[in-house]
Amino acid sequence: VIEHSSTVRVRYGETDQMGVAYHATHVLWFETGRTELMRAAGLPYAELERRGILLLVTDLSCRYRAPALYDEEVRITTRVARLGKASVRFEYFLFNPAGRLLADGHTELASVGRDKRPVRLPEDVVRKLS
Amino acid sequence: VIEHSSTVRVRYGETDQMGVAYHATHVLWFETGRTELMRAAGLPYAELERRGILLLVTDLSCRYRAPALYDEEVRITTRVARLGKASVRFEYFLFNPAGRLLADGHTELASVGRDKRPVRLPEDVVRKLS
Amino acid sequence: VIEHSSTVRVRYGETDQMGVAYHATHVLWFETGRTELMRAAGLPYAELERRGILLLVTDLSCRYRAPALYDEEVRITTRVARLGKASVRFEYFLFNPAGRLLADGHTELASVGRDKRPVRLPEDVVRKLS
Amino acid sequence: VIEHSSTVRVRYGETDQMGVAYHATHVLWFETGRTELMRAAGLPYAELERRGILLLVTDLSCRYRAPALYDEEVRITTRVARLGKASVRFEYFLFNPAGRLLADGHTELASVGRDKRPVRLPEDVVRKLS
Repeated sequence: VIEHSSTVRVRYGETDQMGVAYHATHVLWFETGRTELMRAAGLPYAELERRGILLLVTDLSCRYRAPALYDEEVRITTRVARLGKASVRFEYFLFNPAGRLLADGHTELASVGRDKRPVRLPEDVVRKLS
Repeated sequence: VIEHSSTVRVRYGETDQMGVAYHATHVLWFETGRTELMRAAGLPYAELERRGILLLVTDLSCRYRAPALYDEEVRITTRVARLGKASVRFEYFLFNPAGRLLADGHTELASVGRDKRPVRLPEDVVRKLS
Repeated sequence: VIEHSSTVRVRYGETDQMGVAYHATHVLWFETGRTELMRAAGLPYAELERRGILLLVTDLSCRYRAPALYDEEVRITTRVARLGKASVRFEYFLFNPAGRLLADGHTELASVGRDKRPVRLPEDVVRKLS
Repeated sequence: VIEHSSTVRVRYGETDQMGVAYHATHVLWFETGRTELMRAAGLPYAELERRGILLLVTDLSCRYRAPALYDEEVRITTRVARLGKASVRFEYFLFNPAGRLLADGHTELASVGRDKRPVRLPEDVVRKLS
C-alpha cells in the first residue's frame, strides 16, 4: 500500500459562521493529499496532465467526525486503496494536531484523455502507485 | 416525501482547467438545494440558526456522472430522505438544461446547539420536513 | 452608460467565523454582475469565449463598507465604466435588501486570444457594451 | 518595515477554464501572507481574535501581471505598509518560482471588537508590527 502524509493549515476563508471549517473544504484537502502522494511517488499530477492523461473524480464520500478549526494544522494521510485499469481509488484520513480523527473519506478517479474518454493508466503510473 | 427544485448557474470561478465545474462545487450546490427546500417548507435555515439550532454536516457522498459546464443552469432536485430525532438526510440530483443527470448524492446533518452538542429537532421542524 | 442589476444570495460556505461574508466572495459577485450585464447586452461571455476572445482580469479593487450576512439577497449594480480598444472597465455596487451600500469596486479586463495575447475587442462587442 | 515571505502551491480547484489561477484566489493568498507575517512577528491572528480583536478587511486592490499556473509554488512577500491607531495596511507581492512578479496589491484592515466596532490596536500589537 502506498501511503503519504501532508499537512494543510485551515485558512480563515475556509471557516464558516459556525466557527469551523466549512465541509466542502475537506474535499480540497483530499485533493492536496493525493497531489502530494503522487508527487512523492515520483508522478506529479501536473506532469501526467501534460502527457494527456487527466484524472477525473467520479465518486466522493466524506464522514465528518470532529470540526477542524481556524489556523489548525490538519494532517492528511492518503493511501491508494485500489488501482484499476483506468481508475484509482484514494482514501483519506484527516487528523488535528492532537491526533484526533477529524474526517475520513475516499475519491474514485477515472483516467481519461483530453477528450474526456477513458484511457488505460500507463504502465509506469500503475507501477509507481502500486 | 418533501421535494424541491432550484437552479444555480455555473460560475467561471467554479470551473477548473479541465474546462468543467470543479468537483467540490457540487457540494456547494447541494447546500443551495437544501437551503431552498427548507425555505420553501416555511423553515429558512437562517431562522433555525437564530433559534439556536445548527445543522452540521456529518456525512456526504457524491457520484459524478457527467461534467457541468460554465454558465450552464444546473437544476438541483432535493428531497428529505430520512428524518431522525436529531438528524436529517437529504438527497440531491443535479441535471443540466437538457435533463441529463450530472451527479447525485446525499448529506446527513445532525441538529446541534450552539455548543455543538446534539439536540432534538423541534416539533415544528419535524412537521414541516415530513 | 450600460448598467445592469442582478442579485445573489449569500451562501453558508461564503461566510467566515466573523459571521459575515468572507471578503474574497465579493470578487465572485462582481463576476456574476458583469456576466449578467453582458448576457443582458446580448453578449453572453460564454459565447465570446467560444469565438476565441477571453476577458482576463488585470486589475481589481474593492472597498468594504458594511458586512454582507448569510442568506441575504445582495443586489449587484454593474456598469461599463470605460471601453478601450482591448480592455473594458466595470464598476460594481453591492447593496443589501435595505438598500445599504455594502461594497463597491471595479475590475479592469483585457481582451486576449486563446494564446493570452491582446486582441482588439470585436466591433459588435464594442457596440453592445457602449 | 516588517516583511515576511511564505509560499503557497496553486491547487487544482483554484484554476479556471482559462488554465490559470482564478483571480479571486490571489485574495486568499494575500490572507496567507499576512497570517504568516503575523505568526512570524509573534502575533498569531488566531490569538488576537481570542483576545477579542478582529481585523476586518475594509479595502483591497490587486494588479495582475502574469498568470499563476497549477501546482506552481507562489512566493508571497508581505509587508506592513502603514500602521494606524485602529487599522493596518499590508502590501503583497506574488512571485512565481522563476522570480517573475505575478501580482501585487494591498489590503487595509480595521481593528474591531466582537461587536464589529472600532477598537485601538493594543500596544504589543503595534510594537510587534512596527
